[in-house]
Amino acid sequence: MKNEASAILLISCPDQQGIVCAVTDFLMRHNGNIIDLEQHTDTEEGAFFMRVEWELDGFALPRDQISEKFGLIADRHQMKAELHFSDYRPRMAIFVSKFSHCIHDLLARWHTGECNADIPVIVSNHPDLESLAKMYGIDFRLIEITKEDKAAQEEKTLELMREYSIDLIVLARYMQILSNDFCANFPNRIINIHHSFLPAFVGAKPYHSAHQRGVKIVGATSHYVTSDLDEGPIIEQEVMRVTHKDSVENLIRKGRDLEKVVLSRAVWAHLQNKVLVYKNRTVVFN
Amino acid sequence: MKNEASAILLISCPDQQGIVCAVTDFLMRHNGNIIDLEQHTDTEEGAFFMRVEWELDGFALPRDQISEKFGLIADRHQMKAELHFSDYRPRMAIFVSKFSHCIHDLLARWHTGECNADIPVIVSNHPDLESLAKMYGIDFRLIEITKEDKAAQEEKTLELMREYSIDLIVLARYMQILSNDFCANFPNRIINIHHSFLPAFVGAKPYHSAHQRGVKIVGATSHYVTSDLDEGPIIEQEVMRVTHKDSVENLIRKGRDLEKVVLSRAVWAHLQNKVLVYKNRTVVFN
Amino acid sequence: MKNEASAILLISCPDQQGIVCAVTDFLMRHNGNIIDLEQHTDTEEGAFFMRVEWELDGFALPRDQISEKFGLIADRHQMKAELHFSDYRPRMAIFVSKFSHCIHDLLARWHTGECNADIPVIVSNHPDLESLAKMYGIDFRLIEITKEDKAAQEEKTLELMREYSIDLIVLARYMQILSNDFCANFPNRIINIHHSFLPAFVGAKPYHSAHQRGVKIVGATSHYVTSDLDEGPIIEQEVMRVTHKDSVENLIRKGRDLEKVVLSRAVWAHLQNKVLVYKNRTVVFN
Amino acid sequence: MKNEASAILLISCPDQQGIVCAVTDFLMRHNGNIIDLEQHTDTEEGAFFMRVEWELDGFALPRDQISEKFGLIADRHQMKAELHFSDYRPRMAIFVSKFSHCIHDLLARWHTGECNADIPVIVSNHPDLESLAKMYGIDFRLIEITKEDKAAQEEKTLELMREYSIDLIVLARYMQILSNDFCANFPNRIINIHHSFLPAFVGAKPYHSAHQRGVKIVGATSHYVTSDLDEGPIIEQEVMRVTHKDSVENLIRKGRDLEKVVLSRAVWAHLQNKVLVYKNRTVVFN
Repeated sequence: MKNEASAILLISCPDQQGIVCAVTDFLMRHNGNIIDLEQHTDTEEGAFFMRVEWELDGFALPRDQISEKFGLIADRHQMKAELHFSDYRPRMAIFVSKFSHCIHDLLARWHTGECNADIPVIVSNHPDLESLAKMYGIDFRLIEITKEDKAAQEEKTLELMREYSIDLIVLARYMQILSNDFCANFPNRIINIHHSFLPAFVGAKPYHSAHQRGVKIVGATSHYVTSDLDEGPIIEQEVMRVTHKDSVENLIRKGRDLEKVVLSRAVWAHLQNKVLVYKNRTVVFN
Repeated sequence: MKNEASAILLISCPDQQGIVCAVTDFLMRHNGNIIDLEQHTDTEEGAFFMRVEWELDGFALPRDQISEKFGLIADRHQMKAELHFSDYRPRMAIFVSKFSHCIHDLLARWHTGECNADIPVIVSNHPDLESLAKMYGIDFRLIEITKEDKAAQEEKTLELMREYSIDLIVLARYMQILSNDFCANFPNRIINIHHSFLPAFVGAKPYHSAHQRGVKIVGATSHYVTSDLDEGPIIEQEVMRVTHKDSVENLIRKGRDLEKVVLSRAVWAHLQNKVLVYKNRTVVFN
Repeated sequence: MKNEASAILLISCPDQQGIVCAVTDFLMRHNGNIIDLEQHTDTEEGAFFMRVEWELDGFALPRDQISEKFGLIADRHQMKAELHFSDYRPRMAIFVSKFSHCIHDLLARWHTGECNADIPVIVSNHPDLESLAKMYGIDFRLIEITKEDKAAQEEKTLELMREYSIDLIVLARYMQILSNDFCANFPNRIINIHHSFLPAFVGAKPYHSAHQRGVKIVGATSHYVTSDLDEGPIIEQEVMRVTHKDSVENLIRKGRDLEKVVLSRAVWAHLQNKVLVYKNRTVVFN
Repeated sequence: MKNEASAILLISCPDQQGIVCAVTDFLMRHNGNIIDLEQHTDTEEGAFFMRVEWELDGFALPRDQISEKFGLIADRHQMKAELHFSDYRPRMAIFVSKFSHCIHDLLARWHTGECNADIPVIVSNHPDLESLAKMYGIDFRLIEITKEDKAAQEEKTLELMREYSIDLIVLARYMQILSNDFCANFPNRIINIHHSFLPAFVGAKPYHSAHQRGVKIVGATSHYVTSDLDEGPIIEQEVMRVTHKDSVENLIRKGRDLEKVVLSRAVWAHLQNKVLVYKNRTVVFN
């Protein structure tokens, strides 16, 4: 279906008349065949968001001129615009600690071709999952972190990210809090999975807290990592029913399936360039 | 929010370049402020669908000239286009038999102002729910139907619909099959609720069949009525988990909540002019 | 099915060997035919919970001797035991303010016979819903509350509850906080609906908070009212997916359907004597 | 928690007084500490079902005498009773073709210790997934099947099952129909995953059919394999919402997550000895 490469524009700007018209007119003038167009107006914020995807085959502008030419329209409407190409394979690093269900799931998707990214390296603060990395033939880097050496180890990690030209970091149950400095290097490019239905049960041991509170539904949340722990823009959430019969152990076991699917959906949406962040919220196009 | 009246265009046409551009350009040229725009391309069918809503306030064309002026664009792109105004209150008839949960729910929504329609008449083949109609001050018409007088009674019903200028018929667990002739008078304007997850368990007693088959989830389906029983275009479905502990009685009891919410969502989407039918399927805009 | 009256025992006690055996042996010795038996052991707390229902027809003990005779077993196992009869119709008061969707739903269920209770009185701090009470032929009592007269008005309300012999109070979006003193009169017999997925978004305007936080799922929670606002034992919760397209208005509209169904399920479970409270949590038997 | 071994009885018999009492009395007399007890009465069928699990530590009967001693009670109540021990690790064979998402998921669970079974062999009619088997160090047996050699190849497969002492066969998207003869060797011990919400869309290409019908929800079903294709007793089902925007390709992609979780839940329930089959339905204890 989408065998041929396409271009994607992600646009946000103040709401005003004529934006859709301006963008679609631009594409039509250069003979662009729109595959998908989705827009959203947040009337409360007076903000406009749009994702448009069109075939590169037959498009009159070469790739390296699109940004420049579209810049005229972007400027006129005070747009922030991101341009992506569907045939670019982002480079993704996975950070893990000891729990393996999320990384198992991500690697299986990558292995079967469902995950449109390269995964050149797995980073961990524990040696446990090295053999799993090996099974899949992916580099494994152990970077242990103590209170004392945290800054240095993060610097080392950052160096590693540069070395591997990493676009996206996925925290697949990584049990270390990244510093603001580290996060600042990857704005909206670090995705975390938290094992609760945020904002309920922030912090450690959310299944224990959920059990303690006696909730009838538990959840998992995937979000971009910001300097505020568990407070970043939410990309995806999912929940399931539980009962008084579910022990904490059971919640943890069942919850793993939530975590896996929520994280993988968030990563998928990000890799499809379907996520826009504004005011600590996300627009996730369909 | 949408206190002011708006206009809505529902468009379907063969997929081709420049449609979004043509429509948005038309609106911009007449100073139309777009409130909402959603489009869908079915690449398999080569079909394009669009719903666009814009403010009438400030729009340069008077209402009665919109269709004509837009006709030029519609013709050029072989569009089928429907024009609606948000301040038109459709006139809705509810057909019932003996079960009252769905009509109770519809009337409560109407009573609280959630349902943007007038309900001038309730039609039934049983006298049971006359007092309910009275509670809400709505005309109740008993039209009993036997095998012998079906054609005549349907003609009478049809006459009633004309008399009350009915736009939309809602079958709220109406236990009579409408003839093709009757249905032909209201294409995509009769909404039914079926108490199963179609296409599973068509026909009578679906909860019994579901129980018999031992399914772990049951559902309800709302669809437009066509000449093929339970085969019309599906507008909305919802499901819930059940277990071996749920007797048929329990399925029936729990299922009522599904039926209510599924029917009301379908009616709501229809009244918001968010539903387009093609090839026995629906596009339900968000 | 359950046309004949049955007896229900709700039991909680420290976990120990032989409890199920002791209870079922007691019933068998008096020729009791068990209709339903459900038990739960909380191994962390070392606590045991059980609900057993049996036919009164053929049972060798008259109703008024069951408690006494069972007391011997209860004492031996340090049980707290409640005895209920299925043919007792609890008397339920509904408290409302201005929003009517929950009470509409409860009254419809009562009207169709789904709600196994009498509803002799509706209490409100606003006059708005008097006509709705009248439609259903139920007494309506306006008890306006100001900061100054709160204690006196609650005393008056309490008097009213006694006058009507109320067993259960349902707060159907009642926008007044009941004092601890008032609540102490109805331990585990006041059910509230909160329009969020607790413990997320306690307090006022939860849909606004949910929108602000950008969650992808919203919920509703029904719980027993205790002295801690929004902190009582949760009986039932339900959620639904939302997107960035859902304005606060939309969340409020869609959320009404959650609130209705969650509240009605909680009331139903309570009326079926299926809820046991311990440590601020509930056991809700199936 | 359940570090120590436990015994599990799965019982079905005609409904009658005193069964729970008889079973719990038996356990108490031999000093058995009940960990979990769940019972279900199907009043329509007059059938009784029970699962009881108790600690072996401290139980007065040695394992090999339990069946015999319990036989007296079983006979008196015409029970069919299965006895299992929690520390027995069933031996499971996975059958696959080309799709790998389900087997990937099962193997990951096995690898992390979530799946309480040994997986000595993977059988396939295609060579594609041999490398995956190798990654996990599991024997891979290619048994290609044509119309002509089906009987012989099934015989060979059966021989393999004996050789590996297989208790349970899991069809993880195995695209071959097993003959009645083969199935008869593993009654209620072959679990299949079907990629639709049965009984909707039996047979091949269910996602295409679902798309064609325009359903708003799709599902997956796990069931025991019987001689009637797609008609065996359902163990577990799950669904997800879809819209008109979901192409068939999208349904297939999203559906994989349903298939994985539904199959793994069914396998888990089976391995926990929580499933009883009667009249082509299942009782799945909690």
